[in-house]
Amino acid sequence: MSTRYVVIMAGGSGTRFWPKSRVHRPKQFLAIGGNVPLLRRTADRVIARIGASHLYVVTGEVHADHARAMLPDVPRENILVEPEGRNTAPCIAWASAVIARKDPDARIAVLAADHHIGDVDGFLSHLEVAFEAAKERIVLFGVVPTHAETGYGYIRRGEPIARALGREIFAVDRFVEKPDRATAEAYLAAGTYLWNSGMFVFPTDLMMQEIARLLPDVARGVAALTADPTQIGAIYPKLPSVSIDYGVMEKSDRIAVLPASFGWSDVGSWDAAMEIHASDENGNVVLGEAMLSGVHRSMVDAEGGRFVALVGVDDLIVVDTKDALLVIKRGESQNVKKIVEALKAHNDKKLL
Amino acid sequence: MSTRYVVIMAGGSGTRFWPKSRVHRPKQFLAIGGNVPLLRRTADRVIARIGASHLYVVTGEVHADHARAMLPDVPRENILVEPEGRNTAPCIAWASAVIARKDPDARIAVLAADHHIGDVDGFLSHLEVAFEAAKERIVLFGVVPTHAETGYGYIRRGEPIARALGREIFAVDRFVEKPDRATAEAYLAAGTYLWNSGMFVFPTDLMMQEIARLLPDVARGVAALTADPTQIGAIYPKLPSVSIDYGVMEKSDRIAVLPASFGWSDVGSWDAAMEIHASDENGNVVLGEAMLSGVHRSMVDAEGGRFVALVGVDDLIVVDTKDALLVIKRGESQNVKKIVEALKAHNDKKLL
Repeated sequence: MSTRYVVIMAGGSGTRFWPKSRVHRPKQFLAIGGNVPLLRRTADRVIARIGASHLYVVTGEVHADHARAMLPDVPRENILVEPEGRNTAPCIAWASAVIARKDPDARIAVLAADHHIGDVDGFLSHLEVAFEAAKERIVLFGVVPTHAETGYGYIRRGEPIARALGREIFAVDRFVEKPDRATAEAYLAAGTYLWNSGMFVFPTDLMMQEIARLLPDVARGVAALTADPTQIGAIYPKLPSVSIDYGVMEKSDRIAVLPASFGWSDVGSWDAAMEIHASDENGNVVLGEAMLSGVHRSMVDAEGGRFVALVGVDDLIVVDTKDALLVIKRGESQNVKKIVEALKAHNDKKLL
Repeated sequence: MSTRYVVIMAGGSGTRFWPKSRVHRPKQFLAIGGNVPLLRRTADRVIARIGASHLYVVTGEVHADHARAMLPDVPRENILVEPEGRNTAPCIAWASAVIARKDPDARIAVLAADHHIGDVDGFLSHLEVAFEAAKERIVLFGVVPTHAETGYGYIRRGEPIARALGREIFAVDRFVEKPDRATAEAYLAAGTYLWNSGMFVFPTDLMMQEIARLLPDVARGVAALTADPTQIGAIYPKLPSVSIDYGVMEKSDRIAVLPASFGWSDVGSWDAAMEIHASDENGNVVLGEAMLSGVHRSMVDAEGGRFVALVGVDDLIVVDTKDALLVIKRGESQNVKKIVEALKAHNDKKLL
């Protein structure tokens, strides 16, 4: 049996969780939806199965120390530090090449550092299936939709093409962009559309072969880097910035999808963060010290150490930190970026 | 001409401005509706007219140091310190007796320490009229209603009984309690109802005579106190706790009312505080450092030093202090007391 590896992509620098997320503390380092940071939770899910020495993390220079400190059980050489983010294809090509030098027969699961998974056992059993099924195929996790989500890309599955551990794997008919509301409802009704989770499993040699074929500049650069790792600062920033979805998944004929249900969310906003918490009988989610009177369907995240009182409000999200407070209407959390953009325009380094 | 004095009643220990107001920092010490604390603003309005030596302040023991520090220009002996609050009748009886010993012919205006007055010139001209008219009468300021307010008591005026400086003074037909909405609208339409501002002017001898007649226990206690001020700790707490409205105004036949319009508010709640500020084109009031995106008819009071961002909310009041944050729906600020009651039930001294 091929040996199993996991690569966690931890290069994100998102601002959608401002004021908790900052330039030096992106979402993967936050304990959104739990008590443990998302990166650590992602690592914990798989370490018992594959061992910490088979876990690799790709992150950026500004976050490398933070990642190492959060993952002391992961060998230091397994923390791959990009001098500059070049999107997901170079990241995966590089990690694959590093692992391939050690174990050319490896199978690799690529996971995002900042997703939430409600059903860990369900996730692990799907991971087993995907590792098993990833023979001469790149197997994507396609999450069975639970609602007409407009924030995710979708995968339309085709015919069943294989079975592994009792589960069916499907051909990929096509990838589709984030839909509008009506389209998302049609996808949900159709039953053949799955959320593109951005997580997948592949045999290392197949991925490297597909990258060589579809993204030859990436493959050449990574080969040079593997030959002389000291040249990373010169080579990596010159790699083409391209996503693995666009560069490989949408073009390769070696792609399959495993329908999956394990309480997955990419936790893309404060609204999504509220969804993954259990709420009380009034629909409220309270994290930290707060007192609510006549409040419904609202969330308080009070890590700031301040006492928070809400009176007579509905559908509100309140995020209190030591130096900044955010109050948003539920459903408006995509507009948090407007605040961050305004802070950037003012070059307000203290609050970014 | 009788000499003019002002007594500011600064005994309040209100909790309606929590989290800014605390046990040791009640509303009169807060800069609600401006940059200067309400007590200081109240003093500043009259000092130029009557002189600081004719200004008296009655306050409680816990607030005496704070009041002295805020009013360094007022003689220390003019800051009268109640060992225990006994409502307004003993407070006014005591201040009247203290002033009468110095100046038996004094006329005294009693003002609340924690009201807002938008039109200071208008107030001062009404004050002149009231001082002038307060011959053998207690003259109340009855504020001409601008809307159907349910939070104030009303005075129904009777016939005109005098003129002073060109303005008419009216008999008082009756005092009425805070009305419900429909009654308040009827009062507004009637045109003969005025808001009971709790401010009034009287000749000292008349007030002392009415107190002796209507509240003999108060008068006796105050006489004993005046004879031996060192006994205040024994005498004052035993005075009957009774309001000047109930004890004197509603029973005396020497009461008159001066209709007044000078942008008055008793600033009884966060909703009222929002009303007295000029709002921007979206109806928002921002005090401190805040950024608003898609926000309407909302107030932010950010004295906590934290940056506050609001996104997509309407009709919200956000009050941020160093150790506590309040978020309330506009129109719900009377329920702030529920938070304070719950904190009292928990004996949370830090936040009270």
